[in-house]
Amino acid sequence: MSSRSVDRARLDPRLTERLGELTDLGHTGHVLAWDQQVMMPAAGGPARGEALATISRLHHDRLVAPELGALLDEAAVAEPLVARAIRRDHDVARRVPGELTAQMSRAGSDGYAAWLQAREANDFAVFEPALRRNIELVRRYSECFPEAEHPYDPLLDRYEPGTTAAQVTALFQRLREGLVPLMSQIAMQPARQAFTGDFPVAAQREIGLEIVQSMGFDPEAWRLDDAVHPFAASPARCDIRVTSRFDDHSLTGLFALMHEVGHGLYEHGVDPALERTTLDSGVSLGVHESQSRLWENLVGRSPEFWTHWLPRMRDRFPLTLRDVDLDGFIRAINIVRPTLIRVEADEVSYALHVILRYELELALVEGTLDTADLPAAWAAKMKQFLGVDVPDDLSGVLQDIHWSEGVLGYFPTYAIGNVLAAQLWRAAHADIPELAAEISRGELGALRVWLREKIHRHGRLLSPPELIEQAVGGPLDPAPMLEHLRTKYGALYGL
Amino acid sequence: MSSRSVDRARLDPRLTERLGELTDLGHTGHVLAWDQQVMMPAAGGPARGEALATISRLHHDRLVAPELGALLDEAAVAEPLVARAIRRDHDVARRVPGELTAQMSRAGSDGYAAWLQAREANDFAVFEPALRRNIELVRRYSECFPEAEHPYDPLLDRYEPGTTAAQVTALFQRLREGLVPLMSQIAMQPARQAFTGDFPVAAQREIGLEIVQSMGFDPEAWRLDDAVHPFAASPARCDIRVTSRFDDHSLTGLFALMHEVGHGLYEHGVDPALERTTLDSGVSLGVHESQSRLWENLVGRSPEFWTHWLPRMRDRFPLTLRDVDLDGFIRAINIVRPTLIRVEADEVSYALHVILRYELELALVEGTLDTADLPAAWAAKMKQFLGVDVPDDLSGVLQDIHWSEGVLGYFPTYAIGNVLAAQLWRAAHADIPELAAEISRGELGALRVWLREKIHRHGRLLSPPELIEQAVGGPLDPAPMLEHLRTKYGALYGL
Repeated sequence: MSSRSVDRARLDPRLTERLGELTDLGHTGHVLAWDQQVMMPAAGGPARGEALATISRLHHDRLVAPELGALLDEAAVAEPLVARAIRRDHDVARRVPGELTAQMSRAGSDGYAAWLQAREANDFAVFEPALRRNIELVRRYSECFPEAEHPYDPLLDRYEPGTTAAQVTALFQRLREGLVPLMSQIAMQPARQAFTGDFPVAAQREIGLEIVQSMGFDPEAWRLDDAVHPFAASPARCDIRVTSRFDDHSLTGLFALMHEVGHGLYEHGVDPALERTTLDSGVSLGVHESQSRLWENLVGRSPEFWTHWLPRMRDRFPLTLRDVDLDGFIRAINIVRPTLIRVEADEVSYALHVILRYELELALVEGTLDTADLPAAWAAKMKQFLGVDVPDDLSGVLQDIHWSEGVLGYFPTYAIGNVLAAQLWRAAHADIPELAAEISRGELGALRVWLREKIHRHGRLLSPPELIEQAVGGPLDPAPMLEHLRTKYGALYGL
Repeated sequence: MSSRSVDRARLDPRLTERLGELTDLGHTGHVLAWDQQVMMPAAGGPARGEALATISRLHHDRLVAPELGALLDEAAVAEPLVARAIRRDHDVARRVPGELTAQMSRAGSDGYAAWLQAREANDFAVFEPALRRNIELVRRYSECFPEAEHPYDPLLDRYEPGTTAAQVTALFQRLREGLVPLMSQIAMQPARQAFTGDFPVAAQREIGLEIVQSMGFDPEAWRLDDAVHPFAASPARCDIRVTSRFDDHSLTGLFALMHEVGHGLYEHGVDPALERTTLDSGVSLGVHESQSRLWENLVGRSPEFWTHWLPRMRDRFPLTLRDVDLDGFIRAINIVRPTLIRVEADEVSYALHVILRYELELALVEGTLDTADLPAAWAAKMKQFLGVDVPDDLSGVLQDIHWSEGVLGYFPTYAIGNVLAAQLWRAAHADIPELAAEISRGELGALRVWLREKIHRHGRLLSPPELIEQAVGGPLDPAPMLEHLRTKYGALYGL
């Protein structure tokens, strides 16, 4: 079960040609989408929308072609893992009628527009009919997979192949039971303040580039740009584009950058033997998020990492950091507090925001929660999980874009990423006893190579459960994450 | 004969769908190519090359589809001009065997690599076999059009549809007879110096943006970036991307910017009724170049233009321009001297560089000149046209990329652009008597609207000869250009 054994020369040239074409259309879609968010003049939107739809349709037509299916049957002997992974894409795409896909796409656009209006009005009622329509359509989507145990499973499978709602529910149950009491203990401690003073953007960008170069960002194959919502795009293994958003008043842009470079390292680290097979990218959103979270939180918010980097930060930001020692710095970048907004949440409360959304969308898909009752259900869970009151729809149910576009089944992958990151972190330390010492010296190469070996190089060849099993020796397990948080924040907050 | 009468609703929906798809693939190719030159990390090259080839193949497959031909037959009644223009593309693409296209593409890549090596070695002999191969292939391309009077005609037709080698030869004959003596008169005058002092890049960029906004550059629909070789790209009518290259020691980047914005205004000014018909872009390279040259030279190097802008330049560059009055400034930006390098040539000698290349490539295609004899033929013509000696291949026959990629038939369009620009300039002044006064006040709107009416809005609906006829009331004519140059430089150099 290793990409090391993949040899494209063993594939029928007609198959490699088809996979090459799919690769090129995928590459093209990534470039068009990145450009749309980072470079395109605003008025270019309508033409770009048309072009993206055409490229996506051409990709879909090629993916569902019966000739591809026949070639995959053939390839099942010579390259079983390659054939299996691509057949999965082929089969899923063939199950869903083109008419339903088109309806979902239209409802997603309409939903996004309604969501923007509802945000403008700070009124969920404006969005509710569009959300109802999206739920109806994802339920019809699920019905295309009648063998599924739960109607949520085919939705989750789009983002986290091979994982079921039953597994997520069990995982999140344990996570919630660990996190809710930890959060409430921390919330009882006196609130802490971050920094007094600013971090000028230009200097953040400079030291940010130094930091990510030590992670593996190579200007020959990477670029960094600004974006309102930071993201990473990977048109190809040697064409990795990360974005961030810096502001003078905080270091969030620096952590967002490490996060996005974590995503980029995954795509950059895929075995070159998988290039042009369509398997040369991340296998699931959960595994992807494990990479970004590991670099952002487990490396980027650790005392080891800042042992090396804090003196360099002091050189860049002497006014703000002159009197801040390592302990003070670590406390300031690890402030925990219950908040209303997911994207502003800290390492402890983040997963609770995700679990809340998971439980709600599961109920919406099951039909046990009506869209009209969503704001009340949201508020009740926020109170239960984080002890906070939701003052209005904008800071509650209208805060995320996902549901507006019909994206259900996505949210759990964020917390799966947190869980897996802690498992990998533990496994990496077991395999590399000197890892903490190396990080304290600013050396990140051993960690990057370990992650490449265990995760990156496999691309989409192994399924996520197989990949996780061979990387950490077992399935997803919340224990390392809970232990990490209890130890770290127990010390930081004197619990 | 006006795009005003085009109504896409009169077209068969199956045709509009096919044209929409061709539009989207064209858009995609433009974005991929722009990104490759302006944004892509260097290591992304191989994957991008594959993606561009796939998009180009998909575009070609759709263009030659017999179903498109049948729909165009139908459309010939409802929308004859639309059907005619697209049928032309369809017919030309069908004539050339896919195998030849593939060979030309490969030979173009190989030729480019050989050219780079030859430049490294400053030795034409390293490049000669690749050039020979390219010539052989373009001759085979020509043979696909046996009805052509001259084997050069089908090559020229790729870039300047409807114009023949016989016409270009006659046009260039008259141009050469006017330009060679004018150049030699100027060369006898004492050499002039440009500016003493620098033009810091940041300030050039700022005033450059002010200038091009007065031309019609609108940040909502345009963007400006740096590029080693300035160019313009137009993924869509409302997505126009220009590039320039500024340096502290000259104003060439400013003129290059006006040049590229001239190209962009053409694409931006196409009638929206032509969107998604594939006719919403410039009709030929010659007409395109008339737009860029008009703004760069006829506007941008005129005393009227700088009457308004020189005081603003003095504010930006006080050290360099404090003691420079309008006359001195105009002299400094209109220095004429014989040079070896085309892209550094002035308004007078530029066309001679082009005519030289045209005469040589015509002879190569005819077979009356052997590639091995090219450097000597080049040197002889440089002496004859400009009176200069060519010291080596790098400053001679190896200076341009075009032939290395198998691009023959392109060079004449540069000088056609110069010729047409002067014709349009004369016609615009005849139609707008107050034009010079407006330009002196910094008002460029009337000129832009006149160009849109005469040239831009028609897109590719009219053929270049039809377009030129209705814009200037006759065919291409070198007289206005020669008269403009004699008058302008006669005064500047006291001839």
